[in-house]
Amino acid sequence: MGITLGPNQYGKAEVRLVTVRRDGPTHHLKDLTVSTALRGDLAATHLSGDNSAVVATDTQKNTVYAFAKEEPVGEIEDFALRLGRHFVADFEHITGARILIEEHGWDRIEAGGSPQDHAFSRAGSERRTTAVTVRDGDAWVVSGLTDLVVLKSTGSEFHGFPRDRYTTLAETTDRVLATAVTARWRHTGLGVDWGASFPEIRRILLETFATQHSLSLQQTLYAMGEAVLRERAEVAEVRLSLPNKHHFLVDLSPFGLTNDNEVFHAADRPYGLIEGSVLREGAPDPGPAWHTDAF
Amino acid sequence: MGITLGPNQYGKAEVRLVTVRRDGPTHHLKDLTVSTALRGDLAATHLSGDNSAVVATDTQKNTVYAFAKEEPVGEIEDFALRLGRHFVADFEHITGARILIEEHGWDRIEAGGSPQDHAFSRAGSERRTTAVTVRDGDAWVVSGLTDLVVLKSTGSEFHGFPRDRYTTLAETTDRVLATAVTARWRHTGLGVDWGASFPEIRRILLETFATQHSLSLQQTLYAMGEAVLRERAEVAEVRLSLPNKHHFLVDLSPFGLTNDNEVFHAADRPYGLIEGSVLREGAPDPGPAWHTDAF
Amino acid sequence: MGITLGPNQYGKAEVRLVTVRRDGPTHHLKDLTVSTALRGDLAATHLSGDNSAVVATDTQKNTVYAFAKEEPVGEIEDFALRLGRHFVADFEHITGARILIEEHGWDRIEAGGSPQDHAFSRAGSERRTTAVTVRDGDAWVVSGLTDLVVLKSTGSEFHGFPRDRYTTLAETTDRVLATAVTARWRHTGLGVDWGASFPEIRRILLETFATQHSLSLQQTLYAMGEAVLRERAEVAEVRLSLPNKHHFLVDLSPFGLTNDNEVFHAADRPYGLIEGSVLREGAPDPGPAWHTDAF
Amino acid sequence: MGITLGPNQYGKAEVRLVTVRRDGPTHHLKDLTVSTALRGDLAATHLSGDNSAVVATDTQKNTVYAFAKEEPVGEIEDFALRLGRHFVADFEHITGARILIEEHGWDRIEAGGSPQDHAFSRAGSERRTTAVTVRDGDAWVVSGLTDLVVLKSTGSEFHGFPRDRYTTLAETTDRVLATAVTARWRHTGLGVDWGASFPEIRRILLETFATQHSLSLQQTLYAMGEAVLRERAEVAEVRLSLPNKHHFLVDLSPFGLTNDNEVFHAADRPYGLIEGSVLREGAPDPGPAWHTDAF
Repeated sequence: MGITLGPNQYGKAEVRLVTVRRDGPTHHLKDLTVSTALRGDLAATHLSGDNSAVVATDTQKNTVYAFAKEEPVGEIEDFALRLGRHFVADFEHITGARILIEEHGWDRIEAGGSPQDHAFSRAGSERRTTAVTVRDGDAWVVSGLTDLVVLKSTGSEFHGFPRDRYTTLAETTDRVLATAVTARWRHTGLGVDWGASFPEIRRILLETFATQHSLSLQQTLYAMGEAVLRERAEVAEVRLSLPNKHHFLVDLSPFGLTNDNEVFHAADRPYGLIEGSVLREGAPDPGPAWHTDAF
Repeated sequence: MGITLGPNQYGKAEVRLVTVRRDGPTHHLKDLTVSTALRGDLAATHLSGDNSAVVATDTQKNTVYAFAKEEPVGEIEDFALRLGRHFVADFEHITGARILIEEHGWDRIEAGGSPQDHAFSRAGSERRTTAVTVRDGDAWVVSGLTDLVVLKSTGSEFHGFPRDRYTTLAETTDRVLATAVTARWRHTGLGVDWGASFPEIRRILLETFATQHSLSLQQTLYAMGEAVLRERAEVAEVRLSLPNKHHFLVDLSPFGLTNDNEVFHAADRPYGLIEGSVLREGAPDPGPAWHTDAF
Repeated sequence: MGITLGPNQYGKAEVRLVTVRRDGPTHHLKDLTVSTALRGDLAATHLSGDNSAVVATDTQKNTVYAFAKEEPVGEIEDFALRLGRHFVADFEHITGARILIEEHGWDRIEAGGSPQDHAFSRAGSERRTTAVTVRDGDAWVVSGLTDLVVLKSTGSEFHGFPRDRYTTLAETTDRVLATAVTARWRHTGLGVDWGASFPEIRRILLETFATQHSLSLQQTLYAMGEAVLRERAEVAEVRLSLPNKHHFLVDLSPFGLTNDNEVFHAADRPYGLIEGSVLREGAPDPGPAWHTDAF
Repeated sequence: MGITLGPNQYGKAEVRLVTVRRDGPTHHLKDLTVSTALRGDLAATHLSGDNSAVVATDTQKNTVYAFAKEEPVGEIEDFALRLGRHFVADFEHITGARILIEEHGWDRIEAGGSPQDHAFSRAGSERRTTAVTVRDGDAWVVSGLTDLVVLKSTGSEFHGFPRDRYTTLAETTDRVLATAVTARWRHTGLGVDWGASFPEIRRILLETFATQHSLSLQQTLYAMGEAVLRERAEVAEVRLSLPNKHHFLVDLSPFGLTNDNEVFHAADRPYGLIEGSVLREGAPDPGPAWHTDAF
């Protein structure tokens, strides 16, 4: 039986790009982490070390920096599309590209009550993300966000689950529910106003988490995805990964104290992990939109 | 157009399990991080919060601990198979399970020249891994390792790559090549001596990295996968993810010094990332073996 | 020559405490990481394993949780003082305590334009901190913040430094200046309105960073500390640790492009690190205020 | 009341230096993370931005790389001494330096049973460390190690501790004891064979942890430090920081199972933290040896 090369890709990961755009004295900051990966007819380098098709990952990095100068970066989805299409168009053996971008937010510092022209503070650990796939003449755009940490101090229940010999968990009608939202949404096409769409989808995710009474984190997950699909026609599918960051009620009874959902231990590990997708029926096929790794 | 639930799973992630087995006065340590995820007929909890099919993630955690007592843990592949089959067998609406395990190594401390019965030191950051998928009556086993950091101080070249207007990288016939190997290998079946197979595959990966003269990290990747498939009939496919941990030659010429591959700056980011799979032709279809997330 | 026990302390580190306080339907969240350490006559346990003086670290943890119920947590400085004084008062051989607390911020989620009663989102990675030391009848309070990441896109110069045979850095009159502020300030006494003082000091640090034209990060550091001391009489000393998070101008000339402070590479390592203290002359002696480790 | 500059220092942190030394075809690897900090007459830059005394941190970095070429790096203590003395000798306003180095270990890969000339694998996460302080004509050397993770599966007790209303911990005569050793030892002078001393001290720490029956982690800490001082005349003082990495016995009784110290949950947080020093009576005064930060 023979041995053969399977799916593969290669690129430069985590290029840390910061740009400053001047609007008169007012500066605008973009802070991106860009990862590029190329696919195509790459058997030669794997089998014999012939690199004539291998656009160096150093060249990919240079291209990210040069593109950031040649045209304003703009929305991360557009920047990723420009990069991906460039690699596929300009190199004969490169037939596909996948560009991942994370955008780190910055707020303008206020001094004496007014926002400063050129001084900023980091907005937190949450990042806006995109994953763009280009293949032959086509392209797919997934947008998202990572590490949006949220908590409800009530309005969450969990009961009615099956019990076997290994079940000890008590049923509850009032618990703390906390998670770090990772969301990815696939668009139906490319004609989207990315800059307008993102904050609306983020708002919908947050508001749904906040206002929906939760009987399970799965129900919350589905409600969040469903709300996005209901309100945003540009979205074909929402994928959510929600760790259940357990906040355990501390047993204060040994100290003669009651604990009426007041004092919690926030645990690190283990944690629940709820993953699911919500789909628009009849939406276009995802194609390679979700294949962000090589395989 | 309607909205519908897509692929989903849920479970308990990163249960930190340590077991001590006594062989007379000699103790044996197992240190595992276990993540379980269940799949099946889970629409009710997503759509209405009806949890009658939802085996609590707390129950899953309890099961991991109880199983570790009821029978010796043994090889991680076997432990994962036992766990996955249990969940699918015992719960009506659970039709699939995916169990991920990482094993952390410990060495016996030596004192006065002899290995101690019950004192250990952590072996490093590398972990042995498995990903087991159970669906209906069938099962798939992927084994692997993570974060095996290796470096060659010579025997690595990179040249012959295409040059465009963004290319500045010099060709080289002698560079440092360093990577942190993540390897996953899919087995052709279940009748494998996991404990004997793992160290052999690890040895093959290491020896191939060390001895193969490299014209590109892609060539090294393929050679490593090919060597495993050539020597180990139980393996159907090898997937490798190899970050190119760049060691840049420091330019010492401003100080009147030459640098003949002696002094390097080890960079953090960006890094190259080479991903690829090597397949045995005619091997069984992977089925769901690689679908470790929900989607 | 004999061998003897030197300075020592022990305690429970990183107790993750979350409390919910109800103000009618409106909930208030406190999210703290508390580390306690005790000092005293602890030779017996070190020399012979006699633990009669060793308040178990488990007991210390329990005390943190119980105290959070017995009285509202309030400001972290007050909570730390209560904890520290308790340990010293209640245990004969414990003569000193040092309590470290980090407070993680949460914002109220808005839905339909109004802040929600019981839904929150994490405010970022910055933490408010305190280090309280209790010894015999006395106490010292240091307050602070950690990981306040800020950036100026102009208004920063660096030139006039000495040049030797190893110097290659070009002088600059316009660079990006970015840092992650760790600040600690020691109070002159205990009669401070901690809740009012903290946001003012944070504001002063931010405004000074934003508005002061910088000729060196050292100058910025001193100006930040000086501004706090000038405006806040309750502060005796400010210590700042400011990593210089380098943003290197990318050389775009190989691509025929100029780079007029527009495109930067944000480097991880190495980084500059500027540390310094600013003191009020005639302020009380620090005593053990800064000795947060054992030594 | 006036405001004044207090203790301060500045430098380049975490220079990642890797060197390859050739011994015929056999290569030798050094992998260091070097942090330099300078002290002296630095008021001008703080008060007015006059940088005429400020050896640029970029120059400090260059010096590290150049020194690694000009002479073999050798033991990290010697390399740190050379660097520190250089900065103090060559710059008028620099009167002190503190150099921190971490050394990352690499093992030679074996292939076909023989160690390879130029292929290596990373030895783990433990690092050998040094902190060298130079002031005027004098120097102090502290050596150490970080993140040596060890575990005893028996031979550890904890009982006899005081009980108050917040105490719930059961006494135990058999528990798992695990820690990640951070050790620092101060030398009596500079005439030490660093390369010979380090592995002996590491051996003594490990053997003492392994063989000493433990009644408390404090007792173990003292025994480890005492053994080093007893056997190594070059050491004046040992400081140890030992997190108690709790391994909690899982309660299996709800499942009808006993747990005779077989199945443990390895917890992340909170953890105990035991810190202490062991001193040689009559040893030289530490001077500034331990002042690794500015203050």
